Amino acid sequence: MLDAAMTGRKRPPSQRQNAKRQPAGDTHYLYGIHAVATALANPERRSHRLVATDNALQRLKEQGAPVSIDAETQSARDITRLIGPDAVHQGALLYCDPLPDLELETVLEPDSAQRRLMLVLDQITDPHNIGAILRSAAAFSADGLIMTARHAPGETAVLAKTASGGLEHVPIYRVRNLANAMEQLKTAGFQVAGLDETGSVALDTLEFAPSTALVLGAEGKGLRQKTLATCDHIARLDMPGAITSLNVSNAAALALYIASRRLIPV
Amino acid sequence: MLDAAMTGRKRPPSQRQNAKRQPAGDTHYLYGIHAVATALANPERRSHRLVATDNALQRLKEQGAPVSIDAETQSARDITRLIGPDAVHQGALLYCDPLPDLELETVLEPDSAQRRLMLVLDQITDPHNIGAILRSAAAFSADGLIMTARHAPGETAVLAKTASGGLEHVPIYRVRNLANAMEQLKTAGFQVAGLDETGSVALDTLEFAPSTALVLGAEGKGLRQKTLATCDHIARLDMPGAITSLNVSNAAALALYIASRRLIPV
Repeated sequence: MLDAAMTGRKRPPSQRQNAKRQPAGDTHYLYGIHAVATALANPERRSHRLVATDNALQRLKEQGAPVSIDAETQSARDITRLIGPDAVHQGALLYCDPLPDLELETVLEPDSAQRRLMLVLDQITDPHNIGAILRSAAAFSADGLIMTARHAPGETAVLAKTASGGLEHVPIYRVRNLANAMEQLKTAGFQVAGLDETGSVALDTLEFAPSTALVLGAEGKGLRQKTLATCDHIARLDMPGAITSLNVSNAAALALYIASRRLIPV
Repeated sequence: MLDAAMTGRKRPPSQRQNAKRQPAGDTHYLYGIHAVATALANPERRSHRLVATDNALQRLKEQGAPVSIDAETQSARDITRLIGPDAVHQGALLYCDPLPDLELETVLEPDSAQRRLMLVLDQITDPHNIGAILRSAAAFSADGLIMTARHAPGETAVLAKTASGGLEHVPIYRVRNLANAMEQLKTAGFQVAGLDETGSVALDTLEFAPSTALVLGAEGKGLRQKTLATCDHIARLDMPGAITSLNVSNAAALALYIASRRLIPV
């Protein structure tokens, strides 16, 4: 379905040359009011074509989105016809380039006193979960999200919709080797805390360093052995109830909340 | 798709007579290892037919599920054929009755000193979100979840799968009128706190009563006017970042964490 929708889109020659620099997204459009509004407001985002209902256009403007490219007004039904019935597009569809890849090396200045909060995802694959995590990461002012280039989704429309704007706010670093990236974080002064049920310390009693990276694994599989071994600490989220694990995006929200309260005391 | 799968299922006469007492679920099967294992372990759950792969059967037993009804061994592909390609069934499929409806009146004894934590959902409709909320509610020992009989999903397989067992642990009360149910909670000694961005107090500084009910609204729409007006307090979740609202299941996890830490100090 996504491929079919993309067929009609002509890439400019310059972009075709740069294609290998693009993240491995399987789509080059975004939908949903928040996702489209924040994408339009993001100077890093190259947009090509905005398709919206009259009502959605009004909502985009109300959200302060700079609607600088000419919007094509279409009915919600026509937009559904463009991208398929499963897309909750809310009348807003933006054809754009994925955000360019970012290199972790270029941003990691060694500084252990700086207040920095980084998220690391170990082969989490569900775009809904990653989208919700990005949204929470933006809400709690995380400085970036690191994930593997393989075994993780690219910038998909579903991910962007679930992130509800978070995709434009949180830098994403896709790395070949997660353990190496974690070592880079440590060299740059980060304390690296993995979240795992077997953790020896509860996250809300962990002594946080100013620069902290939280590492989360996929549901069921958890953190890989090498990932566990590379962490400075393994921390757990204590739960008093009958179920002792949360949906991974809920666990991320909780961990971000705890870390952000500890890094910026209220 | 669900209807097609249900066609082959014969209800016993006794159940047909009681059909109007069933929740408005659109399906009478569950799938996924956790959802099926906890359903089999729940004495309140009437199961009829278990279909599983050899591997899933092994995993169900490892999780301590009492596999008392005869399991039919089938391939994963055959199970997909039974319930459709979108169901992440993990090789386990259980045909069963939905859990019976529960009456809020029968459980609410007036006792303001008792430690009780209740969740109230105001027209949240996404079964994935409600499932994740149920999972967190079970993790944080919530005593129940109240939602409206209309404008909320019944016990669907998607909800059960996302709840990952939470459906069997957290009593669900479906009420005709949410404001009336909130008044009943207050009469029974509950402090009723609604979550809204406009709240006058941050949830983590709220003075919690031993019996607390947290009220969450649908994303975008938020709490309805009448719901807001019926709350004792309106509290907000403070977030330092560029995005100031979370996915509703993430907000629920955070609120449950905060409330549970305050109600049972660690």
